[in-house]
Amino acid sequence: MSLLVTGSIGIDSVITPHGEATEVLGGSAVYFGFAAAAFTPVRLVGVVGEDFPDQFRDLLASDRIDLAGLETRSGSKTFRWTGKYSPDMNDRETLDVQLNVLGEAGPKVPAAFADSKVVFLANTHPALQRELLAQLDGGCLSVCDTMDLWIETEADELRRTLRAVDGVIINDGEARQLTGKGNLVEAGEAVLDMGPRFVVIKKGEHGAMLLTADSVTTIPAFPTKNVKDPTGAGDSFAGGMLGYLDQCGQSNTASLRRALVRGTVAASFTIEDFSLNRIREVAADDAEARVEQFTQMLRID
Amino acid sequence: MSLLVTGSIGIDSVITPHGEATEVLGGSAVYFGFAAAAFTPVRLVGVVGEDFPDQFRDLLASDRIDLAGLETRSGSKTFRWTGKYSPDMNDRETLDVQLNVLGEAGPKVPAAFADSKVVFLANTHPALQRELLAQLDGGCLSVCDTMDLWIETEADELRRTLRAVDGVIINDGEARQLTGKGNLVEAGEAVLDMGPRFVVIKKGEHGAMLLTADSVTTIPAFPTKNVKDPTGAGDSFAGGMLGYLDQCGQSNTASLRRALVRGTVAASFTIEDFSLNRIREVAADDAEARVEQFTQMLRID
Repeated sequence: MSLLVTGSIGIDSVITPHGEATEVLGGSAVYFGFAAAAFTPVRLVGVVGEDFPDQFRDLLASDRIDLAGLETRSGSKTFRWTGKYSPDMNDRETLDVQLNVLGEAGPKVPAAFADSKVVFLANTHPALQRELLAQLDGGCLSVCDTMDLWIETEADELRRTLRAVDGVIINDGEARQLTGKGNLVEAGEAVLDMGPRFVVIKKGEHGAMLLTADSVTTIPAFPTKNVKDPTGAGDSFAGGMLGYLDQCGQSNTASLRRALVRGTVAASFTIEDFSLNRIREVAADDAEARVEQFTQMLRID
Repeated sequence: MSLLVTGSIGIDSVITPHGEATEVLGGSAVYFGFAAAAFTPVRLVGVVGEDFPDQFRDLLASDRIDLAGLETRSGSKTFRWTGKYSPDMNDRETLDVQLNVLGEAGPKVPAAFADSKVVFLANTHPALQRELLAQLDGGCLSVCDTMDLWIETEADELRRTLRAVDGVIINDGEARQLTGKGNLVEAGEAVLDMGPRFVVIKKGEHGAMLLTADSVTTIPAFPTKNVKDPTGAGDSFAGGMLGYLDQCGQSNTASLRRALVRGTVAASFTIEDFSLNRIREVAADDAEARVEQFTQMLRID
């Protein structure tokens, strides 16, 4: 059991119809890490600046999250993002983004992490994703995310990364943009043709779809009235999925389907409060109780 | 086993990214009827004009659909609708609508149909929906649809109808408009507060949600690449649901959940071809095979 995540660690400010949070802990690797930690220990790899607040470091400190790969770079500043959600929270506007240390050299994977068995390459430049992967021993289960910017500007690099990974977890808009297919089953199949063995398409409040060579599984989101802040839902989804896959030590279709449910459940916790406030309190028992509730809802005999 | 549907019977012209169909059989009661007929015999109540083509009458003629309630009104013309779908088929524009006979007096329920046990009041003026319901013996399971026009212009009449029925099947936009709630679980609960014992919110390609006093069930749509024409999907959904409820003779939460799946499956057949071309060929075995495929997809142990 050894799950590694590389991605952003940032300082977020966010406004939703339910309130706002200013200068709170965020970033893809952080949301992923706390979501995965309900299922398996996590190795976090990323870079922050010397301005990274001590209280955020305290928040990250957990016996489930190994911070040996967290670099604090002198003379650099931490990634910052400010965003505002639409009234229905299905869209958001980036009001300000400061790449800071994320615009510099990428992080190094500690030698002690090279034997990781499951690896998530959160969204970053696709060439950097492959560099990070190259620092690991072969044979791990590798999964990546990406974003519209790289689909548009780094298509060739992204294709190389897609040939190098086992799986990809992207949202519906990215899947359509990447493939030119409007129908999501067609889009997912087109992504499979690019190399990965499995594809997960996240649809936000509408759930998620998993495609493998021989299966298509669509599930809804966990139905809830309690949505305060959607930030980090997608990374938490990936964290729940891969945390479970690392825990169970398999990645066949049946395991991927079970992982899809864990991702859905992890995201449903994250959106219940701002920042990491809810997801970092989720214990294994909480997650399993909601998994049971969700799978029972979907079991219609 | 006696399911009655009242609604439109029309002549449609439709353009989708996959082609077009000109002057084909359509209408809510027709889509509902063919979808329900895979599960139970159907009593159809509606009015057409004297221009209603003989070949459409032949298409409707089926030993599963009783046309004793189909009135052909002299001097009147049949309802006509022309629409065009967006490239992703999630939106459509009405290019032309001619109410014709639907703007005149409503249909009469034949005395022999008064003992119907399950009744679907497809979208029409909410006062007319209650008039139709009043022509039936008490004790039936009554379910209605509605539309944005009545929510906006006949709010009081619609509230009366919602107090008179057991269930309502509407789409997500209508649920939000009717309740002022953006979150669909909240919207569904607000509809329940208006009177019905159960509410189904249709979300098109994103599936459907069922709410009762003590349960919330969300399921996805049947995942498919094969979508030619979404016209009639919502009415087919209602037909599959109520056809199953009439067949099983119950409407407890477990039955409603099973009915939700049958509705989903019925809609998935309808959209595979233009007009009634696909759904009217669906036999009970075809429907059950797809129900099995869909429930297996959702069974994640």
